[in-house]
Amino acid sequence: MKNFININNVKDYQDLIKESIEIKNNPYSLKKIGVNKTLGLIFFNSSLRTRLSTIKAAKMLGLETIVMNFNNEGWEIEFEEKTIMSKNSAEHVKEAAQVISQYCDIIGIRAFAELKNKNHDESEKILNSFVKYGSVPIINLESSCAHPLQALADAITIEEHKNKPNPKIVISWAPHPKSLPHAVANSFINMARMSNYDLVITNPIGYDLNPKVTKGINVIHNQEEAFKNADFIYAKNWSSYNDYGKILINDNKWMINKRKMEITNNAKFMHCLPVRRNIVVDDSVLDSNYSLVINQANNRTYAAQTILKKIILNEG
Amino acid sequence: MKNFININNVKDYQDLIKESIEIKNNPYSLKKIGVNKTLGLIFFNSSLRTRLSTIKAAKMLGLETIVMNFNNEGWEIEFEEKTIMSKNSAEHVKEAAQVISQYCDIIGIRAFAELKNKNHDESEKILNSFVKYGSVPIINLESSCAHPLQALADAITIEEHKNKPNPKIVISWAPHPKSLPHAVANSFINMARMSNYDLVITNPIGYDLNPKVTKGINVIHNQEEAFKNADFIYAKNWSSYNDYGKILINDNKWMINKRKMEITNNAKFMHCLPVRRNIVVDDSVLDSNYSLVINQANNRTYAAQTILKKIILNEG
Amino acid sequence: MKNFININNVKDYQDLIKESIEIKNNPYSLKKIGVNKTLGLIFFNSSLRTRLSTIKAAKMLGLETIVMNFNNEGWEIEFEEKTIMSKNSAEHVKEAAQVISQYCDIIGIRAFAELKNKNHDESEKILNSFVKYGSVPIINLESSCAHPLQALADAITIEEHKNKPNPKIVISWAPHPKSLPHAVANSFINMARMSNYDLVITNPIGYDLNPKVTKGINVIHNQEEAFKNADFIYAKNWSSYNDYGKILINDNKWMINKRKMEITNNAKFMHCLPVRRNIVVDDSVLDSNYSLVINQANNRTYAAQTILKKIILNEG
Repeated sequence: MKNFININNVKDYQDLIKESIEIKNNPYSLKKIGVNKTLGLIFFNSSLRTRLSTIKAAKMLGLETIVMNFNNEGWEIEFEEKTIMSKNSAEHVKEAAQVISQYCDIIGIRAFAELKNKNHDESEKILNSFVKYGSVPIINLESSCAHPLQALADAITIEEHKNKPNPKIVISWAPHPKSLPHAVANSFINMARMSNYDLVITNPIGYDLNPKVTKGINVIHNQEEAFKNADFIYAKNWSSYNDYGKILINDNKWMINKRKMEITNNAKFMHCLPVRRNIVVDDSVLDSNYSLVINQANNRTYAAQTILKKIILNEG
Repeated sequence: MKNFININNVKDYQDLIKESIEIKNNPYSLKKIGVNKTLGLIFFNSSLRTRLSTIKAAKMLGLETIVMNFNNEGWEIEFEEKTIMSKNSAEHVKEAAQVISQYCDIIGIRAFAELKNKNHDESEKILNSFVKYGSVPIINLESSCAHPLQALADAITIEEHKNKPNPKIVISWAPHPKSLPHAVANSFINMARMSNYDLVITNPIGYDLNPKVTKGINVIHNQEEAFKNADFIYAKNWSSYNDYGKILINDNKWMINKRKMEITNNAKFMHCLPVRRNIVVDDSVLDSNYSLVINQANNRTYAAQTILKKIILNEG
Repeated sequence: MKNFININNVKDYQDLIKESIEIKNNPYSLKKIGVNKTLGLIFFNSSLRTRLSTIKAAKMLGLETIVMNFNNEGWEIEFEEKTIMSKNSAEHVKEAAQVISQYCDIIGIRAFAELKNKNHDESEKILNSFVKYGSVPIINLESSCAHPLQALADAITIEEHKNKPNPKIVISWAPHPKSLPHAVANSFINMARMSNYDLVITNPIGYDLNPKVTKGINVIHNQEEAFKNADFIYAKNWSSYNDYGKILINDNKWMINKRKMEITNNAKFMHCLPVRRNIVVDDSVLDSNYSLVINQANNRTYAAQTILKKIILNEG
């Protein structure tokens, strides 16, 4: 594997999940493969799980890590070509990416969607600039449109908890006071498609995701109808894709609660975290035995470790 | 030892001090005990000594460390139960503590008093939430009401410099332009009580500390009277406890200077740092051979190392 | 070597460059010399190259590193003697430097010029305070008036690319929208002087550097005249030294472009980075094969590694 930008960079996704579970069972077995190599983690946005789990994963492979929070510790980077850099940006990504590539053997990049301009976000300017100008493998730590490490952790979690080969999985939009990106939903849907799960999307009218992502997948605008017979409920807010980045409704009718979970087939509850309690989902669901949110976060470590291993060993 | 939240978590305090001094004499003798373990240091407030000395201590035990400055690098955490998280907090400590516990084998937490509401500060909401929801040992890196690593470093320093078994130690209030917490004074007093030192507290009227902390200890409102025959002077500002968090007087009559030190029995001068020169204490005292402030800071490393060792080896 | 404050701390500069190139050829050969030692990196300003390359260099020597961004993670430090610390500064450098010296075996300090007061900047208050009050070797990670690690990386780069023993090197002022310090230019000039290069300085009238630095060196106020027969062009902006810290001209006549490079003897182009494209130099020069800017950044690692090695082994 050269880069891990999205799920499509993986040759055999089922093999990847199996390998992740093997690594989880023996996480220090590969402690030598990263020796004398350095992982750089470049954050353009805040991070808790990604920061800590990726550092942990790196250390379990013997990799040194260097973390840089660009907004606090560096300066503004220019991403446009051929600009006259007379404004705030002090350095062009052409230089930054080449330079960091000389200090690091692998670079992880976190750069969220700005949700102002769809074309801009979909161009994945920041991430793709590091791929283009950097000279080492690049890992996506959540970009505008994808969060493939989260999706891999979710896949591991589902494999660990499913009771049937092809469970019914419902990804449900849920309310949120702030405008949020589509990255987690996009990658989850791609992952579920590659895993042959029985996937259903449910969201209010106006909140349909990018049709390229959801093509061929059942989208139901009635949440309770969608929840019937579900084995897993994956909750996530996203802002409107059509009316790009906008919040169209604010009421809590779509919040996930115990009553709705009772419609399902004793479904497990999933969320990528951070989650706003009693806005996205109520306490009773999060605090129940059906919640897998803590397991998902734990599996972030093994997802990162597996991807780092495949990059270090240049495996498919 | 499961957690190190305050001094009362220690079974035999005299043994702990002896062990700290032994570790100081041979700090790399335990370099293997932390291998394959990770210490997470979570800062909700600024730190110099605690940050550097605890990282240093961890490394001397072979522990990996992951530092996170929550205010710069993460988002606002919710600590109240059953709230509807529609405001600024993006994640509940229920999730944060469980999640971080999966990436770290031990977690250190720094969360200062806000000095707005006494009951709130005394509930130690942040620290206790990590104890309650986390699943790994928690170390107090200074909370609202306690700074037990500082107190242990102070105890080591006194043991190294005392000339008699039970020296007279005076903890003296001193002026400061900002409203400061009671944590250092509380833990110092608890430590001195457990060490059977001849402890005297001196502070202006209106600045008496929490009576539960000072119970049975001589409080003298005349600083010079208190200083007579003292072997150690420990200077510290704190805001009013009764008129909670308020600054009642601003003059510098209580500043510690050479003339006042001459009243003592050639007392050593102590302060936890950072110290405002010529406000809390004047240059002549800080720059004299009687000052132990740099020694105290040095002993922070061995205090942290001893506590980490006892947690790793699950000793009493 | 005790401290590395400026280029004059080096006994034999040509030997130092040779040794740097040897280390570059075998960077992990010295992996044991830093074991059980800690490098503290204290940043009072932003950093990308210095931060990452110095961490990388330290790790290749087996040194542990502790990074502290004072502005984000600590508090304001007082540098004046005998002040009454009633304002914003919470700790005096007397204590800070002594304390950090106890946790670290070597300390790197970055503290830029403020460009408000020439005497203040030239006193190198921050860096010199750490030298004065600290008790371990101090490395300059760019101070008000010097950036010797950059100069060493530049020297390595010139040695790797020169075609004749004493190439003609032109350091040229270039435009910039912000007021910038003189540190890089000062150290580059000192380095070129010690390396016996045929050095020419070119800058607009009003932008002459400190005459103590440029003494005996040819300063030409006509850029194109200066470029003739040059083997290396080193571009750098600096604010006025006479009218201290001021920007006197804003036009782009001094920007380095392809046409000007064609006046030279196929000169290589150098810049310390970060560089503002199409302000300091145009895309066609930076993106050409003549540009060495990425090589310079790479050599920062080996410059730092060499200095750290000489300090650890206490070599001349």
